[in-house]
Amino acid sequence: VPKVSQEHLDSRRAQILDGARRVLAKHGYDGATIAKIVEETGLSRGAIFHYFHDKKEILVALGAEVSERYVEAVTTGGFAEAIRELIREDPELLAVLIETEARLSHDEDFVQRLAASSAAFLPTFGAWIEEQQAAGALRDDVDWRDIGRFANIVVNGLALRIVRSEETDVEVITRLLEDAIRPKPPA
Amino acid sequence: VPKVSQEHLDSRRAQILDGARRVLAKHGYDGATIAKIVEETGLSRGAIFHYFHDKKEILVALGAEVSERYVEAVTTGGFAEAIRELIREDPELLAVLIETEARLSHDEDFVQRLAASSAAFLPTFGAWIEEQQAAGALRDDVDWRDIGRFANIVVNGLALRIVRSEETDVEVITRLLEDAIRPKPPA
Repeated sequence: VPKVSQEHLDSRRAQILDGARRVLAKHGYDGATIAKIVEETGLSRGAIFHYFHDKKEILVALGAEVSERYVEAVTTGGFAEAIRELIREDPELLAVLIETEARLSHDEDFVQRLAASSAAFLPTFGAWIEEQQAAGALRDDVDWRDIGRFANIVVNGLALRIVRSEETDVEVITRLLEDAIRPKPPA
Repeated sequence: VPKVSQEHLDSRRAQILDGARRVLAKHGYDGATIAKIVEETGLSRGAIFHYFHDKKEILVALGAEVSERYVEAVTTGGFAEAIRELIREDPELLAVLIETEARLSHDEDFVQRLAASSAAFLPTFGAWIEEQQAAGALRDDVDWRDIGRFANIVVNGLALRIVRSEETDVEVITRLLEDAIRPKPPA
């Protein structure tokens, strides 16, 4: 048996996730069957199940990926820039965001698995907000978790509106978010 | 045949909506069958179909009702007070809010019907925001629609978090919303 390099494993895994992301965007979670992912990627069922235990594990991986990209974008360029990147540039990521959100409502197993997959990078998010608070760039009269939650609410709500093609001025909504979390002027 | 009074008709309709709201909160939209509404209300299928053309029309009526209550609460006591009323006091209303939101994503017929049912009171919402802008109580550097949309995003996101029992400080999130939409201090 030839030895398979780590790069090969990683790139195969990424190939499956790319295909699954497209399938999810087209068909939603319920419609995203392994058969469709097989068709989209050109890989066998066996190959897919070699990397992912079940269909849910693929959505967990996609959900963790979108969270990780969001956290990376926020900690690199701030919330407004992260929203522009995530919300505007990739409709497939929006679909992942929304399907992940929907799943969180009625699948406790999914909630647990996603939390486990996100444990590695979520502390970075908290640390970054606290640094910004200390530096006077974000308000420090509320807990960093509340700032994170408020921003998540706005990001998810924006994603929904965009996917539904509801009239939405992303720049204005982003500006209101920034005003909500900026330091309060002295009274 | 005895003449049926308008009050009787109205109260029967309200009885159906009350039962349907409870069923929806317990079983979600897909699980909320007419059979369950029959069981919950003690009314016959025939009686229910006398008031509502189909199951979807019941959700449209419930969705319009929650919007109307929200608009009434906002125009009476402002956004923060409306959130307290709507979000905190009635888990069944939260369920309606969330099921309505979910439906909006993949049911164009539902979108149209809900818009038609909401047409009567939505202008009140816009007029109230514009009055508040003119009075200096809300920021006037953005369109009233953007203020309404931003508040809706936050209200819906809060509702989701509460229904999922995710840790959420409603007062803090409400305060951030208020800071987002209050007039900006002079630069």
